[in-house]
Amino acid sequence: MNNFVYCNPVKIVFGKGSIAELKELLPANKKIMMIYGGGSIKANGVYDQVLDAAGGRKITEFAGIEANPLYETCMKAVEIIKRENITFLLAAGGGSVIDATKFIAAASLYAGSDPWDILKTGGQCLKSALPFGTVLTLAATGSEMNPNSVISRAKTQEKLAFASPAVYPQFSILDPETLYSLPGRQIANGIVDTFVHVMEQYMTYDNNAPLQDRQAEAVISTLLELSPHVFEEPEDYDLKANLMWCSTQALNGLIACGQPQDWSTHMIGHELTAFYGLDHAQSLAVVLPSLWRCRKEFKKQKLLRYAKRIFNIDTGCPGRDVDEAINKTEEFFHSVKVPTKLSDYGVDAKEAAEKVRDRFNARKVAHGERAEITGDVAYEILAGCK
Amino acid sequence: MNNFVYCNPVKIVFGKGSIAELKELLPANKKIMMIYGGGSIKANGVYDQVLDAAGGRKITEFAGIEANPLYETCMKAVEIIKRENITFLLAAGGGSVIDATKFIAAASLYAGSDPWDILKTGGQCLKSALPFGTVLTLAATGSEMNPNSVISRAKTQEKLAFASPAVYPQFSILDPETLYSLPGRQIANGIVDTFVHVMEQYMTYDNNAPLQDRQAEAVISTLLELSPHVFEEPEDYDLKANLMWCSTQALNGLIACGQPQDWSTHMIGHELTAFYGLDHAQSLAVVLPSLWRCRKEFKKQKLLRYAKRIFNIDTGCPGRDVDEAINKTEEFFHSVKVPTKLSDYGVDAKEAAEKVRDRFNARKVAHGERAEITGDVAYEILAGCK
Repeated sequence: MNNFVYCNPVKIVFGKGSIAELKELLPANKKIMMIYGGGSIKANGVYDQVLDAAGGRKITEFAGIEANPLYETCMKAVEIIKRENITFLLAAGGGSVIDATKFIAAASLYAGSDPWDILKTGGQCLKSALPFGTVLTLAATGSEMNPNSVISRAKTQEKLAFASPAVYPQFSILDPETLYSLPGRQIANGIVDTFVHVMEQYMTYDNNAPLQDRQAEAVISTLLELSPHVFEEPEDYDLKANLMWCSTQALNGLIACGQPQDWSTHMIGHELTAFYGLDHAQSLAVVLPSLWRCRKEFKKQKLLRYAKRIFNIDTGCPGRDVDEAINKTEEFFHSVKVPTKLSDYGVDAKEAAEKVRDRFNARKVAHGERAEITGDVAYEILAGCK
Repeated sequence: MNNFVYCNPVKIVFGKGSIAELKELLPANKKIMMIYGGGSIKANGVYDQVLDAAGGRKITEFAGIEANPLYETCMKAVEIIKRENITFLLAAGGGSVIDATKFIAAASLYAGSDPWDILKTGGQCLKSALPFGTVLTLAATGSEMNPNSVISRAKTQEKLAFASPAVYPQFSILDPETLYSLPGRQIANGIVDTFVHVMEQYMTYDNNAPLQDRQAEAVISTLLELSPHVFEEPEDYDLKANLMWCSTQALNGLIACGQPQDWSTHMIGHELTAFYGLDHAQSLAVVLPSLWRCRKEFKKQKLLRYAKRIFNIDTGCPGRDVDEAINKTEEFFHSVKVPTKLSDYGVDAKEAAEKVRDRFNARKVAHGERAEITGDVAYEILAGCK
């Protein structure tokens, strides 16, 4: 096990009716801005619940955060915050709205000349941010309980991540009933996203951290168990509650304690979203199986553990077990109706592979737990997704 | 799943050599008191490492915290703290030292007339406490990452618990190498304590919280896997690291999220320690199997899940599976050389059963997930431990 530091101060308020707790959670003596997306919070009642809990306090609203939140949009919010002396933010939405709020919180107090540097340095240059809380309406990114954010820039077709202890939410309200009205595509994307978050922290090599391995497997087994049913019974409270808690636990730092991490599926996936507009989860579902096939010799120990513990595959022939586990994973993505080939999204695999290779090479980056996913390896992975 | 609030702000600094991090973690401009036990930290080098990291800063020392920390001893520390205007505490030791430090931190700022009220109200009356950090030297209680404390009072033979957000450690340093020199009895006690902590939060009834169930099972499976080896190889770093992380994860609030909890094994066990001086873990090893046997009809769902997932017991005859799982649990305690009958400790079961029954009845308490463990049920449980 590696040495690690773990500290996650987010206060989670979980359960039916929990949005009403905002009344106690919103700090007095602060000027509040509520940040949200395209208006689904008005359709599902969350908007009204927030205003009810705020009990007549004046709240400035900033709507229109996109599914892959844009730097350009965020900077409009920053302008209003500075002009109106806003001192507390409330994100009401899914991971995109929360990620955007983190960047807005950081950029609002950023003293440097170009806020894009926050992303270019991965958050290293960040010292402070406006305080904020969240009301989660989508189980997917885990952003409600972590210090991470991913922002896109339209002008340059870039999608970059940053992380900083300055952008932990002060609180996050998780009411599973907010998931009842979500379209199937968003539920499915959330399931794939959660699954891949776990795998980025699990599917590396055996690092003698058996508790963290089992905590990761706990999320995966629960997700596989729940997934067929969440579509059949959209208003089953416990199913949605368990799905929501899985997605939070998948990326709050816990399962990463002392473990090597990969994240190359995300790094390649971000480029597919930036170039071709694939949903984040779609990009992950495309990259993951191909990446595992390309790298199966390096991930063999953990692929075999996964095969045995999650799918009960143990034929005595390790090569066959590994292949079978990868196939089962791809079948799982298909079972929630998320396609796994670039051609399914009308994208030419060779072109995508070239574009991502060139970008990785230009940036001189190499991702993954062994820092071996160079531009050339990314090419091979994407060429295998056709 | 029940509604819940989860917030655990403790900063965990985990790994080899991590005591040196104290240099950064000890707050400047505070007057520090280091609190420890009988001096094992001098034998195992922790004391020197702490002083090295403090780099010549003046630190007041308070030694002599007992294995079941006494109110009377804690109050002596409080007196010195007030006299010398100490403003930050550093616990260096196991759960007893950390529990004592929590009570000392609370009592030092307590405005009421009698600090024992902190325990009599279970912490309800507590508003603030001195800030403190910990250097953990024993894997057992989880006190390093929770807001709980148990204190005994010699005069009245009482042992009471309190909990309050005011007594979360600011940081806890977990260096697995501090466990190398521990006697086998302390390692064994820590394993039993960790095991029973998980069970108090798991072995109740099915509450449709499958992720939390699996997170609990993750700790148990890992503990069963590690336990035979930690005695054979006392200086195996990874074994000790995994044991240490299991004990922290067993009682930091995570597996309790949205779940019913029992804690009657602890409540009965505390009385055995108060009356007869059994080690805390010994008292748990005595009570748990008998409690499960007395209550197996009420805990059947979870006993069957435990039998199947942990021991792979699934004969098709539920009654036999439950009995077998309870026997296996008792065998596990025996395997780490912790006896499970009151006679093994020279205690008369009937007398103990009467004493605990009378005390529960006098206090008019009923413990357990259904609040059905009255004095009479406790009598039955203890009478079964002979």
